[in-house]
Amino acid sequence: MSQAIQLNAQIPMVRQPQFLHKADSLIPELHRQPRSPLAVINAVADPQALFGWRAEPLCSLEALYQREFSEGESVIIDFGSHCVGYLQFACHSAGSPPDAPAHLQLTFGETLCEVCEPFSDYRGWLSSSWLQQQDLWLDVLPAEVALPRRYCCRYVKIEVKAVSRKFRLRFDNLLLNTVTSAPERCPPCESADAELQAIDRVSVLTLKNCMQEVFEDGPKRDRRLWLGDLRLQALVNDVTFARHDLVRRCLYLFAGHTRADGMVSANVFVKPQTIADDTFLFDYSLFFVDVLYNYLQSAEDLATARELWPVARRQLELAFIRLDDSGIVRDSDDWWVFIDWQESLNKQAAAQGVLIYCLQRGLWLAERFEPQLVAAYRAQLQRLKAAAQTQFWDDTQGYFISGEARQVSWASQIWLVLAEVGHPEQRLAVMQRLLSHPPTIAMNTPYLRHHFIAALLQCGLREQAVKEIKAYWGEMVRYGADTFWEVFDPQHPEFSPYGSKLINSYCHAWSCTPAWFIRLYGL
Amino acid sequence: MSQAIQLNAQIPMVRQPQFLHKADSLIPELHRQPRSPLAVINAVADPQALFGWRAEPLCSLEALYQREFSEGESVIIDFGSHCVGYLQFACHSAGSPPDAPAHLQLTFGETLCEVCEPFSDYRGWLSSSWLQQQDLWLDVLPAEVALPRRYCCRYVKIEVKAVSRKFRLRFDNLLLNTVTSAPERCPPCESADAELQAIDRVSVLTLKNCMQEVFEDGPKRDRRLWLGDLRLQALVNDVTFARHDLVRRCLYLFAGHTRADGMVSANVFVKPQTIADDTFLFDYSLFFVDVLYNYLQSAEDLATARELWPVARRQLELAFIRLDDSGIVRDSDDWWVFIDWQESLNKQAAAQGVLIYCLQRGLWLAERFEPQLVAAYRAQLQRLKAAAQTQFWDDTQGYFISGEARQVSWASQIWLVLAEVGHPEQRLAVMQRLLSHPPTIAMNTPYLRHHFIAALLQCGLREQAVKEIKAYWGEMVRYGADTFWEVFDPQHPEFSPYGSKLINSYCHAWSCTPAWFIRLYGL
Repeated sequence: MSQAIQLNAQIPMVRQPQFLHKADSLIPELHRQPRSPLAVINAVADPQALFGWRAEPLCSLEALYQREFSEGESVIIDFGSHCVGYLQFACHSAGSPPDAPAHLQLTFGETLCEVCEPFSDYRGWLSSSWLQQQDLWLDVLPAEVALPRRYCCRYVKIEVKAVSRKFRLRFDNLLLNTVTSAPERCPPCESADAELQAIDRVSVLTLKNCMQEVFEDGPKRDRRLWLGDLRLQALVNDVTFARHDLVRRCLYLFAGHTRADGMVSANVFVKPQTIADDTFLFDYSLFFVDVLYNYLQSAEDLATARELWPVARRQLELAFIRLDDSGIVRDSDDWWVFIDWQESLNKQAAAQGVLIYCLQRGLWLAERFEPQLVAAYRAQLQRLKAAAQTQFWDDTQGYFISGEARQVSWASQIWLVLAEVGHPEQRLAVMQRLLSHPPTIAMNTPYLRHHFIAALLQCGLREQAVKEIKAYWGEMVRYGADTFWEVFDPQHPEFSPYGSKLINSYCHAWSCTPAWFIRLYGL
Repeated sequence: MSQAIQLNAQIPMVRQPQFLHKADSLIPELHRQPRSPLAVINAVADPQALFGWRAEPLCSLEALYQREFSEGESVIIDFGSHCVGYLQFACHSAGSPPDAPAHLQLTFGETLCEVCEPFSDYRGWLSSSWLQQQDLWLDVLPAEVALPRRYCCRYVKIEVKAVSRKFRLRFDNLLLNTVTSAPERCPPCESADAELQAIDRVSVLTLKNCMQEVFEDGPKRDRRLWLGDLRLQALVNDVTFARHDLVRRCLYLFAGHTRADGMVSANVFVKPQTIADDTFLFDYSLFFVDVLYNYLQSAEDLATARELWPVARRQLELAFIRLDDSGIVRDSDDWWVFIDWQESLNKQAAAQGVLIYCLQRGLWLAERFEPQLVAAYRAQLQRLKAAAQTQFWDDTQGYFISGEARQVSWASQIWLVLAEVGHPEQRLAVMQRLLSHPPTIAMNTPYLRHHFIAALLQCGLREQAVKEIKAYWGEMVRYGADTFWEVFDPQHPEFSPYGSKLINSYCHAWSCTPAWFIRLYGL
């Protein structure tokens, strides 16, 4: 998930100190591992290469450490894979005693293009403050430099912006002190398929690099906890690192600061203290129910699930307010629900699907923690499903429609299938028809693509699921991805919803899910 | 003094640990004083104003602290006078929780033009790394920011380069923690002349802001200890702060790291350890003798003077090697002696003057510490003076000439007068002729201007000295100088020897001497 604009700064919020205290007590220790550069490279503009740039080996690290840099010279180092951490290095002078400060500029890139294309040309609509760079003025040489900010990079460009004519600079001991809250050990992937194994590796590194003090959205950009993304990360965590305590911490964070009516926010900031964002999304709030249900299933932690059940129940109650008399979620034009990054998408049917999906999980939780609610929930579930089938199903087209304009989209089919609306044969036919007669309102994000794969597997379309995983995530691997990207359109790999590929996140929570499919379904 | 290029990185150097140890033991404690901004201003381009910019009051500090800054907005704060220190401030967010880092750019200026004209346009030949700026990325708000580098400024511009559209920034508690090794108390100036009082005030602040762990050349640019400048600072120090221990420290620093033949360097770096620069200048090395002599007179510290006398003597011995058979300093084309910043100036006669001047001080020191040398020194002194009178005096012109081309310059007259070459009436006539028939090879720096005033006073031309002080340093005060500038040509106040007024130092050691004249001569 990523940021879009809701401005609700004046909305009354409430804090639940007991939940926040628990969240704090669960702050994970980060595992630190120093990492040396693997290569020193030249970047060559190449229209055939990913994002327009190709790396060529330049020299060994030993040779780099011997080289003396004058004003205007630069170098790109390659850590060999995507990393999250803190850069340190030593800088020495050569020649006369340094008679002026040394001005360095460091640029960090998850991709090569980020260190090759000047940030000053950036014209995207997200804040340029996300672009990773730092200017340093070293007054005293030699200097041991340890940058205080955390960076997310495979490539680091070091430019000597200014020294005097009397001295040059040498670099030494370049290190990235990587951090993650994922444990070192992760069960191996048991797939016999080499391509799926490669996809699994990239999935796991994506999750690992997003696992910090919370499950971050993207360690480069956004760096915070979004509920819908947490939901997918928690799934992959179950079959890999199994750090259930981190999921637990995140649940308490969402529960600890809510709108005055109890609605959980779409995302939470954790520094300098826990602050829920003033962005509220119908689907993201509802996913609290699903994350809690899934946590209970995985961690078997009844106490936490019992304590947080009222928070989950509240999300359902608030969602019910949005229902019209016929049991359909009311549509609107503002940015009320996420589903996918897509302006032309009508989200009513998909939102209905999300509500049904989460109500089913709420019903299972109620069976444990509030049995007196079960009958009402069961009736509500049947009502919502029936209403969806009545209102959205178009038998002529063989598709669910959405909104007043009766739009046919991938999203509507996927979510109403996941919600188990209609009968199983109908849903199987819908998924097969998506493959043979794709609607023009397509899938824009890996996030919706995840739900597509989930729907295929739910309908037993295992081979098609594997094919789609290979066609989408596999294509990123073929492009050389170390981690899975926030945004990927195989037809337009440079596409950015923000107006610049430089600001896209190239290690993003919602893209890490193939490992879950591969491991859970034994693909 | 300032940097020019000699490249002698391979020259053998020797360290004298006992001297360096003494220098270290004399590192002064810095006095720290927090200083709040005095005003919040707008800069207005104005061709009539100094350096092209005029300050207009914008709002109160209280109003600034209430203001909310969005991306692209900026403000200039004015500390009311020239300061050297460390900036700190608090930065808060307003609006929604900050969902992106805050990217700030800070620019520091001794003058208004430095914070108004983009450093990216700088095309001077000194390293742009001296231009004072810092980009900050604040990941967590509110933030208490304390910049680690020392800056030299009256003005600070704060620009919000990037925030997201969801929040704005507020600033608070802006402070500059000023530092100096000058004591708080300084004897008052007793001149009855209000203009001289004002000039004295600016002189004293110039010295104060240059007094750090050494007598720095300029606290903005160069920031190190030059011998010729130390000599002038020590004079002003005698009549103001009287921190003789700091002069003593500086003498040990020069003595502690020399060329293998014992020549002291023109300047010394003190961090990370004491390192003499590989720049050697005939006049600057000789001034070690004068600084030591003056230190002995002021501090009455016989032990130090005795210990360092051999170092002083060595500078004279090395200078004698440069004499030709007739007792004249050999000229050459390279940058062998400083005298003034002036390419067209032939420096032979002035260098002869410096040698005679320093030999006289060496003779006085020898009378105390090595009486067996006195006779030889006295003979040498007479020989050098006679040779200068014979070789350089042009009775037709009534001026000293210099070099093969028999150049007439201000510098030659000034230094041979200070050296007491010829008879007193001759020297008085020379100084009067300078005023009535100025040579075209003029004075370029406040440094040479100091020696001009000294020569006037030495010849008893007290009124003319006052008039010249008021015309030169007084003009800087009328331009609004808080501290005296490295470079000042009243006809071309924007002149820079480095190709940009942005890189000039506006608080510079060698310009602080009017206080010495005013106080010592009771002007």
